[in-house]
Amino acid sequence: MRFDVGKKALALHKKLGGKIRIVPAAPIRNRAELSLVYTPGVAAVSSYVAKHPKEARYYTMKGRMVAVISDGSAVLGLGNIGALGALPVMEGKAAIFKTFADIDTVPIVLDTQDPDEIVRTVIAIAPAFGGINLEDIAAPKCFDIERRVIEALDIPVMHDDQHGTAIVVLAGLINAFKVVGKKMSSARIVILGAGAAGTATARLLHAAGSKNIVVLDSKGIINRSRPEPHKRELATFNTKGIKGGLKEALNGADVLLGVSGPNLVKAADIKLMAKKAIVFAMANPIPEIMPDEAKKGGAMVVGTGRSDFPNQINNSLAFPGIFRGALDHGVTKITDKMKLNAARAIAALVKRPTANYVIPDMFDKRAPIAVAKAIR
Amino acid sequence: MRFDVGKKALALHKKLGGKIRIVPAAPIRNRAELSLVYTPGVAAVSSYVAKHPKEARYYTMKGRMVAVISDGSAVLGLGNIGALGALPVMEGKAAIFKTFADIDTVPIVLDTQDPDEIVRTVIAIAPAFGGINLEDIAAPKCFDIERRVIEALDIPVMHDDQHGTAIVVLAGLINAFKVVGKKMSSARIVILGAGAAGTATARLLHAAGSKNIVVLDSKGIINRSRPEPHKRELATFNTKGIKGGLKEALNGADVLLGVSGPNLVKAADIKLMAKKAIVFAMANPIPEIMPDEAKKGGAMVVGTGRSDFPNQINNSLAFPGIFRGALDHGVTKITDKMKLNAARAIAALVKRPTANYVIPDMFDKRAPIAVAKAIR
Repeated sequence: MRFDVGKKALALHKKLGGKIRIVPAAPIRNRAELSLVYTPGVAAVSSYVAKHPKEARYYTMKGRMVAVISDGSAVLGLGNIGALGALPVMEGKAAIFKTFADIDTVPIVLDTQDPDEIVRTVIAIAPAFGGINLEDIAAPKCFDIERRVIEALDIPVMHDDQHGTAIVVLAGLINAFKVVGKKMSSARIVILGAGAAGTATARLLHAAGSKNIVVLDSKGIINRSRPEPHKRELATFNTKGIKGGLKEALNGADVLLGVSGPNLVKAADIKLMAKKAIVFAMANPIPEIMPDEAKKGGAMVVGTGRSDFPNQINNSLAFPGIFRGALDHGVTKITDKMKLNAARAIAALVKRPTANYVIPDMFDKRAPIAVAKAIR
Repeated sequence: MRFDVGKKALALHKKLGGKIRIVPAAPIRNRAELSLVYTPGVAAVSSYVAKHPKEARYYTMKGRMVAVISDGSAVLGLGNIGALGALPVMEGKAAIFKTFADIDTVPIVLDTQDPDEIVRTVIAIAPAFGGINLEDIAAPKCFDIERRVIEALDIPVMHDDQHGTAIVVLAGLINAFKVVGKKMSSARIVILGAGAAGTATARLLHAAGSKNIVVLDSKGIINRSRPEPHKRELATFNTKGIKGGLKEALNGADVLLGVSGPNLVKAADIKLMAKKAIVFAMANPIPEIMPDEAKKGGAMVVGTGRSDFPNQINNSLAFPGIFRGALDHGVTKITDKMKLNAARAIAALVKRPTANYVIPDMFDKRAPIAVAKAIR
């Protein structure tokens, strides 16, 4: 099945020769049309925009164009496969941006994985763009890169692997808590994985009022003696000071969020959790635990990153609307408040949540519109 | 008139909000389609391309996408108006590329004018592109930037202000010589302007067999004592050692090529030239001398950069076909021989040259096809 999809995808990509096309917004059929789109008419536009840079968003592609930028250091579940390896994913993302939110995006993949060079390059090419979507950049460097680019630019910048994921997880959790009759503020949440997605999710859940978040990486529960600054920060969310490994973390926990790798969790582990447990096992394409196993362990609400199971927790619900909203409303920084509002807006689309329906379908056309409204 | 075109262009740009759009090459209407364009199917493509980088041109946008890159340091006749000022021109160029040669191009304008930083940035963003069209970068730094980027990359790189112009000038000259009954090898050619276009034109005419080229800048005829290396090179083409200013250069000359600024030449200057003189006055939008003035001075063939006079010497005849040919034929470096062949191919489209028809119309659909055939 997986092999078959891969084979079909290869054939389709070869047939297409790239997944996006550029088209002129106005036809050039004769000299009169050319004289407006190009010389001599364009000179007036260039002079005007050079003198009034803030108006560039009305007269140029800057008002509608987002750059999707990756260094290929953490591509899907494939790891560090470099710039060209990342390109098909970035093109796919561009196709999704256009299809879901009518946003024009340009894939840019970088021939460098050095953080300073990445920051410098993104800043250098930024003038033509109305937003920057960072993508598939490995943790921990992704945190520093994102922060520096945000500081340097006056357009919205977002590393989607962090915030897109965090927003959609929060949206799903809001409804899952309704289904199981628990509260964000009193629930214990375990996050397996301290990469880009795990870290941003922990931060956003903390901002949403969660007071008990235990994050694990391959070395076990993260504590304050870790060398990495972002991990020391994550340890502060572990307010009960829980120590040990996955079993100790899950013992009595209400929520397990998996953003790590395939098959790391067994039904026996889920059995350690509190009653009416919530499990989002989001490793792709093979989750930390398959839904039937999680249910066997006693989980009440189960989500994955996959479209062939209920409750698909997928970035695509968030990122198109986020940039749509930012462009429409002239937003220059995407704040935590906007992210929380976006998550609530997605959650609110599910009027009567059930165990198998805590998150809208990713083709739900209301989602990008609702998210865009929240980003202002 | 000019004001009117500018006003109309501003209104059109504001209405369009950018002159290009991105469209997906395949629709995403359901999960099955999404699973091929994006996860899980795209993982097979990413893995394949990462392992076989040379095949990226068949599976990704690299095979069809050219980056049009400018630092805004020499935009049209407007000078150094910066990145945002350059953007409307780059978008126009992208529209022309698509319309004339079905090439998808992404405008990139740089927030830096430092040559090292430009070279570094272009190399960093190159992986996704099948070609690099440098644009509106000031001389003399454009020469060094182009050379370094060509050396670093294995895709075609061309600074169009240099080579696009040079190719079209040569094409026009080939036919103009037929009309006036003179020869490239024995004619004296005067080039007014030693910027990107003037320098590249002198070099290409030299490569085409011209043995007597006198180049002037604002300080007069260029000699070997000039500090700039590219100007010392231009001085070597002045084989008769002619000294002085414009009058001395034009005295008995057969060809005047203007790539400088408005109204620098009078009818009295043209009178100094040899009989049956050729004058291409290509400053835009106001030529070095208006065609009626040049004719009053005795010129037999007169061309300009403008579409409202006969013999429009315009880059658009060359650059779309050059990149079309390079992409189609897997060309990684654009050589002098290819440029000469491209010029000859353009010239050959005019079967019976006359004083008012030495160069094809820029909407001549045969031009990009003929040029593309020459680039291999």
